[in-house]
Amino acid sequence: MWDVTEEILEALEIGAGILGTGGGGNPYLGKVEALQQLRAGKTIRVVSLDEVADDAFTTTVGGMGSPTVGIERIGRGDECIRAMRALERHMGREFTHVIPGEIGGSNSMRPMIVAARVGVPVIDGDGMGRAFPELQMDTFSIYGVAPTPGALADPRGHEVIFDKIDDPATLERYARAVTIQMGGAAGYAFPPMTGAEVKRTAIPGTVTLAVEIGRAVRRARAALRNPVDAALSVSGGKRLFHGKIVDVERRLLGGFARGVLDLEGSGPDAGRSLRIDFQNENLIARTEEGEILAVVPDLICLVDEDSAEPVTTEIVRYGLRVVVLGIPAPELLKTAESLAVVGPAAFGYGDVVYVPLAGVFGQAG
Amino acid sequence: MWDVTEEILEALEIGAGILGTGGGGNPYLGKVEALQQLRAGKTIRVVSLDEVADDAFTTTVGGMGSPTVGIERIGRGDECIRAMRALERHMGREFTHVIPGEIGGSNSMRPMIVAARVGVPVIDGDGMGRAFPELQMDTFSIYGVAPTPGALADPRGHEVIFDKIDDPATLERYARAVTIQMGGAAGYAFPPMTGAEVKRTAIPGTVTLAVEIGRAVRRARAALRNPVDAALSVSGGKRLFHGKIVDVERRLLGGFARGVLDLEGSGPDAGRSLRIDFQNENLIARTEEGEILAVVPDLICLVDEDSAEPVTTEIVRYGLRVVVLGIPAPELLKTAESLAVVGPAAFGYGDVVYVPLAGVFGQAG
Repeated sequence: MWDVTEEILEALEIGAGILGTGGGGNPYLGKVEALQQLRAGKTIRVVSLDEVADDAFTTTVGGMGSPTVGIERIGRGDECIRAMRALERHMGREFTHVIPGEIGGSNSMRPMIVAARVGVPVIDGDGMGRAFPELQMDTFSIYGVAPTPGALADPRGHEVIFDKIDDPATLERYARAVTIQMGGAAGYAFPPMTGAEVKRTAIPGTVTLAVEIGRAVRRARAALRNPVDAALSVSGGKRLFHGKIVDVERRLLGGFARGVLDLEGSGPDAGRSLRIDFQNENLIARTEEGEILAVVPDLICLVDEDSAEPVTTEIVRYGLRVVVLGIPAPELLKTAESLAVVGPAAFGYGDVVYVPLAGVFGQAG
Repeated sequence: MWDVTEEILEALEIGAGILGTGGGGNPYLGKVEALQQLRAGKTIRVVSLDEVADDAFTTTVGGMGSPTVGIERIGRGDECIRAMRALERHMGREFTHVIPGEIGGSNSMRPMIVAARVGVPVIDGDGMGRAFPELQMDTFSIYGVAPTPGALADPRGHEVIFDKIDDPATLERYARAVTIQMGGAAGYAFPPMTGAEVKRTAIPGTVTLAVEIGRAVRRARAALRNPVDAALSVSGGKRLFHGKIVDVERRLLGGFARGVLDLEGSGPDAGRSLRIDFQNENLIARTEEGEILAVVPDLICLVDEDSAEPVTTEIVRYGLRVVVLGIPAPELLKTAESLAVVGPAAFGYGDVVYVPLAGVFGQAG
């Protein structure tokens, strides 16, 4: 059990950005809101999965919508709380904890703000260990938690409750259709889970992991050491490629940013090139010879070569000098059940076989 | 207070079809389901608005979606009941009555089936006195009933509850987006209304009107009298045009069938022609000189010249010989508040002024 400080929020912003693997939205605005809560005297308490009682009553809270819309449109800030309260009224029971659905990107911050305002602790874990584009791509769904009842709320206070939907992909379709009508961004609360369910299905320790990555980067920057090395040492990942972005092909399709980006090597990778396919998140990193260096669900993260600042799909552009990190996915994402939902075939790459990335720690393990 | 018989359901099918003004969906399948309920010994009781207590708790129930989908796709039959039960659970209170939202077309029958299966009476009235393409186009909304909470249910048992939405057009957008994801057809229950609210806002006696129109047509057919004359004598309408359909231009746009149909006159109208604009429902009837014979919200109804069988937008085609009926809209649709929502401008005809149709009874009044 530990309390979130301003330093922790600054670190989480960077770590969650890196774990966003290009997507998940920018944690910056959420960080500012969370900082405001701390400065107003509120407490954000984080508890480990071990500390959650089996009969606890938990839910994930976060923002749904296209990251591109999330940047443009500032909500009233209480959408997630309204969604959570609507779900509580629907179920006749109050939540005792919240947990991030997605540690990568902006949804790392929403539970912090809810925790501060509502006064419940945040569980140190999440359902993705990174970011993914769709709701059903989390370990809660993959390991059998019913996706509904669940709730959405929009900036105008409108509430929509979904119930009796067994299939998370159906909930994803219904909720996304409503989110688009809500203007492209909404707050959500689902799935409701007991403590026992969340302990069985969540990826443990990912809030801590994100904070530790960010903290290592910030300390390295302050000490004039290499922030990219620092991020790697904490995340268990390795350098896949070092170079310059020379081409970006991106289009918005069904609310997702899809495309490819091409890199030209520098330093140790001079003379080589790399292509990355993305759908909001980076999915496959391939050399020009077609050798696959990393593939989803393993994490492919672009960071600025000097500062290790995350480079997301929205801001990626010609000329940026980056290091491509490969971070091994959490074990819960590598099972057969998970690969069916978040492996390369689930993103349309039926011909690509998932070969786990051997990270620094992965090799040792 | 009266009970629905098999003869009444047969009459309602025809009358509701005519009042559908080309849209509203075909009441046939709903009639078959309602007949099955009667044959299984169930009762369908109809009560007048006068007989509803102020503290009664009522809702409309019906099907949402494109009529074209409604024809193709047979639901499991209990979508409306599931939606109503979901709304009851949400509000913590059971409904004492149901009322048609829309007497024109298939939604005339859904409350009958719900009444039979759940054991509550149907109120003799509705919110449109005809059919309209969108949810907010009813007198409940127009005269200030809050549109939510409300519920949708689909054939797979999925439930979606909408709440805290003050604006019926917003509910329409959200609910239609979900309905499309549900496969294009869903059962709905909303808005919840007290007896006092429904008495203030509903168009009275429209179930009786539909039954009387259908009964007159059926009796005329049996007696070898002219069924079109019979329909007119009961509805207070008049013949606008008699002729043959010579062209239909129709396209599906945003879930609605939009287009125009052209008629070539015969009998008293030989040598003349008529054009009708429609959006699911018939909206404007104009001569080739541009003279407007009738315009929404007045009812423009196509019926077969021999049988007075309603000719809907889905089945209209070259060569059909029809009479175009003009039936004056109920008074509640002709106020300034109503015309803002269901007048010609609301359908994109900003240059057309609504001039009330002088019907046979309308002229007398």
